[in-house]
Amino acid sequence: MPTAREASFELFREHGMTTIFGNPGSTELPMLAEFPEDFRYVLGLQEAPVVGMADGFAQASGNVTHVNLHTAPGVGNAMGAIFNAQANKSPLLVTAGQQVRPQITLQANLTNRDAARVPQPFVKWSFEAPCAADVPLALAKGIHMASAPPKGPAFVSVPMDDWNSEVDAAGAKQVAARRVESRAGADPEAVAALARRLERAESPVMVAGPEIDASGAWDDAVALAERQRLPVFASPAPGGGRLGFPEGHPLFQGILPPAIGPVAETLKGRDLILVLGSSVFPYYPYIPGPFLPDGAELAQVTSDPDEAARAPMGDAIVADVRLTLRALVAEVAEAERAEPAPLPGPAPGEESDPMTPTLVHHTLAQEFPEDGIVVLESPSSTLALRNQLRISRPGSYYFAAGGGLGFGLAAAIGVQLAQPDRPVVCVLGEGSAQYAISGLWTAVAYEVPVTFLVLRNSEYAILKWFADVEGVKGAPGLDLPAVDTAEIAAGYGVASTRVAGGRSELHEALAGAVASTRPELIEVPVAPGMHLV
Amino acid sequence: MPTAREASFELFREHGMTTIFGNPGSTELPMLAEFPEDFRYVLGLQEAPVVGMADGFAQASGNVTHVNLHTAPGVGNAMGAIFNAQANKSPLLVTAGQQVRPQITLQANLTNRDAARVPQPFVKWSFEAPCAADVPLALAKGIHMASAPPKGPAFVSVPMDDWNSEVDAAGAKQVAARRVESRAGADPEAVAALARRLERAESPVMVAGPEIDASGAWDDAVALAERQRLPVFASPAPGGGRLGFPEGHPLFQGILPPAIGPVAETLKGRDLILVLGSSVFPYYPYIPGPFLPDGAELAQVTSDPDEAARAPMGDAIVADVRLTLRALVAEVAEAERAEPAPLPGPAPGEESDPMTPTLVHHTLAQEFPEDGIVVLESPSSTLALRNQLRISRPGSYYFAAGGGLGFGLAAAIGVQLAQPDRPVVCVLGEGSAQYAISGLWTAVAYEVPVTFLVLRNSEYAILKWFADVEGVKGAPGLDLPAVDTAEIAAGYGVASTRVAGGRSELHEALAGAVASTRPELIEVPVAPGMHLV
Repeated sequence: MPTAREASFELFREHGMTTIFGNPGSTELPMLAEFPEDFRYVLGLQEAPVVGMADGFAQASGNVTHVNLHTAPGVGNAMGAIFNAQANKSPLLVTAGQQVRPQITLQANLTNRDAARVPQPFVKWSFEAPCAADVPLALAKGIHMASAPPKGPAFVSVPMDDWNSEVDAAGAKQVAARRVESRAGADPEAVAALARRLERAESPVMVAGPEIDASGAWDDAVALAERQRLPVFASPAPGGGRLGFPEGHPLFQGILPPAIGPVAETLKGRDLILVLGSSVFPYYPYIPGPFLPDGAELAQVTSDPDEAARAPMGDAIVADVRLTLRALVAEVAEAERAEPAPLPGPAPGEESDPMTPTLVHHTLAQEFPEDGIVVLESPSSTLALRNQLRISRPGSYYFAAGGGLGFGLAAAIGVQLAQPDRPVVCVLGEGSAQYAISGLWTAVAYEVPVTFLVLRNSEYAILKWFADVEGVKGAPGLDLPAVDTAEIAAGYGVASTRVAGGRSELHEALAGAVASTRPELIEVPVAPGMHLV
Repeated sequence: MPTAREASFELFREHGMTTIFGNPGSTELPMLAEFPEDFRYVLGLQEAPVVGMADGFAQASGNVTHVNLHTAPGVGNAMGAIFNAQANKSPLLVTAGQQVRPQITLQANLTNRDAARVPQPFVKWSFEAPCAADVPLALAKGIHMASAPPKGPAFVSVPMDDWNSEVDAAGAKQVAARRVESRAGADPEAVAALARRLERAESPVMVAGPEIDASGAWDDAVALAERQRLPVFASPAPGGGRLGFPEGHPLFQGILPPAIGPVAETLKGRDLILVLGSSVFPYYPYIPGPFLPDGAELAQVTSDPDEAARAPMGDAIVADVRLTLRALVAEVAEAERAEPAPLPGPAPGEESDPMTPTLVHHTLAQEFPEDGIVVLESPSSTLALRNQLRISRPGSYYFAAGGGLGFGLAAAIGVQLAQPDRPVVCVLGEGSAQYAISGLWTAVAYEVPVTFLVLRNSEYAILKWFADVEGVKGAPGLDLPAVDTAEIAAGYGVASTRVAGGRSELHEALAGAVASTRPELIEVPVAPGMHLV
């Protein structure tokens, strides 16, 4: 009879989950014993970057990804990153070790008491099997839950004495062989009704959200927009964990502002707002106003029942975005509407010393390879990067949809491991880089050739901007003197460059780093403040 | 009428909580507005070190300490450190910002949905006031809960629009002025019964736990041991967040082993085991056996009802340890028992290249100032340090009782801020240092003169030892090549030294660092493996 460990690794193998991200502790050792040769263990030095890497890997591979943590304190350190993974709808199987069963009730050291409660409410499901025999089944349920819509992290706690227990061979085989297909398209009648509504609309508009890319509906979204001649906005940037539409496409009209009043203002004159694969809406900050412009209706397609239920306006269809979009494209007639004027191309903005983030991203756009991927965590220049790069290929942009810092640096490593043939550029603020800084060790140890571009403005610029918006004066902790990312990264063994000589030096540094086969970090001083274009 | 912010700062002021540890986000800005000049804000770059610093400050100051975090993702990043604070019984008021009330139901970006659920089960109490007017009362309850036995973290979430709401002036004044005195001694009859039991015992023994130091009962524990001529063991090291007895005292017999069978073996022949201020027991790993030696009884004094209730053997008195010990000393007769033989002095062990951790700690003991404080997180040399230093003053040793890494580096900074006149030496493994590495920035920015002594063995030595204990072979992730703490620390601006030349160089480096008025880091390569003496 196989042990629970053998049966579980067979389950992982069947699901293609042969890369495990982790930071081990004593309670995880029995799981890691005799680690199979066809598996890869990616070590991180703290749990926040470990989960961030797994999140990037899961999103960029499209596969449920296993991340293994150390009982209560390890899961604790990971909770911010698990929050991000939930917001990103990233399919993670999070496992953690636990004390041996005979020492849980008396709460010996490292007992994860109430283990299933710890990661709540940031996971879809959490569990500790009541007996060792059910460990493979619990893990299988975790995998199926993580990959069902809306995708997200599921958690299983495993007492360390369970791994060597024997389990029923036939049962384990059945559990490993099962497949759960959770992708389901909308009711054809609902699709037809939406098609008629769209055809009848005089001035409809599409809002493209992250689930378009995540569900593989990129081409379908383009087909629908072209067929119906829809102007397309991206959903507000704070919730835009991925792109939903090519931002260089002539129908693309920019990114919706992230606040109630301004959204309605931007969409003025529209009679139907079709929101695909986004919440309605990821607002922030609070600028009150009408939710919709006068005379407008809203229809949302999302695979997330919570996203549908909590929206304060409009109707929703809960179904897989790709299947539903494909059906909608097949159903809807070609429209005769006039096409909107395309956006003007991005301008480099003014020269200054130090450079503006706008100019940095303008320079990056020129060096950015066609098949490049951006992982972005530079809150005060998010919009500038989006505008300058106009990313137009699927699977090419990752961002923490929940707003938690620490995703970027770590996720870039996971994305690069999942997409070894595409150059990954990770754009960070120097403040953001600190939330998962030890991830740099993993990049070096596993030779992951990410280009880290760190914008150094010596402040939490986004917070100063928010303070202005909120009328806050005299708040401490908004300046960041002497955070020397290039030196710290060098300490981790990353090849680091500080660009002090302006644009041509940046061009050269970027070209070299993107072409390099090892991780490289470029720190560039930038002008302070928020940069929107 | 004062605003909720003004009333809350008056509350903090009344409780002496004028140092706030934090990492701010947009949702915290309204609280931080017009930050009063008599308050100090200590900025950390990630939430794990922020809470670790606050934990050290709270323990070393004895006062409830306020730590302010950024809504869901910030609390998430902090959860491992909050777990540690709970295990350490550290009185923390943890606050976090929250979306504005009008954007919580629709779950705008950065909404901490189920805010009160997030930090569970690692806090004593968590809450979000249902209306702005009750924010000061909610914070006051948090303060009183955190400081009631068993001390620990309490959590209050505050929607960002609450801070500028007006609150009733008279009510706020009453809330700020209230005092809750939670220290309560045991029933005198229970104390008298315990005294008789102790007097009657033929071979009693004391087990001294962390709550002795935390409750200020150091001298009382010594008085009791001397009066009754009790041999004294320290409670097992994994749960020993603080010391309970001077380890250079002639009655001190060493540290109990952290496993069921070996504890009973060590205490063989004893008829009464008096456990003061400790759980029974912080076991780890699992080595089964009888809980008590034949013929032994156990009596525990703890202020923690959970610690009393979950013990698998013996009786317990739930009451303040200092008051109860003081009453017990007054009640109990002087004993005539023979005193045990004192422990032999620590030996430096063998010379080797690189040095053993034993020799490093032997060297440290010689340079360690009389009023020095150790903050320890070097899992494979915990016992060697305890044995070599034999710390014998109260308030001189801090260790993560829960077993979560990341406490040490951060807590040392908080301890030093709370005890500016005592030299703090933080002893870390290079692996441990990575869980809160960005704390080094805070040490530099606030000129906190901690001496960081980092033992570099290029492995997770404790895990290799556990793997041996558990019979695990072939586990990945146990080696740590190229973690260059000295270089990384230099990147943060810490004056760093790598000791390569043996003992005399280490002497010199330690003497210089301890005398220095800025943070200094010494990295010393050490022999691999676990070191017990």
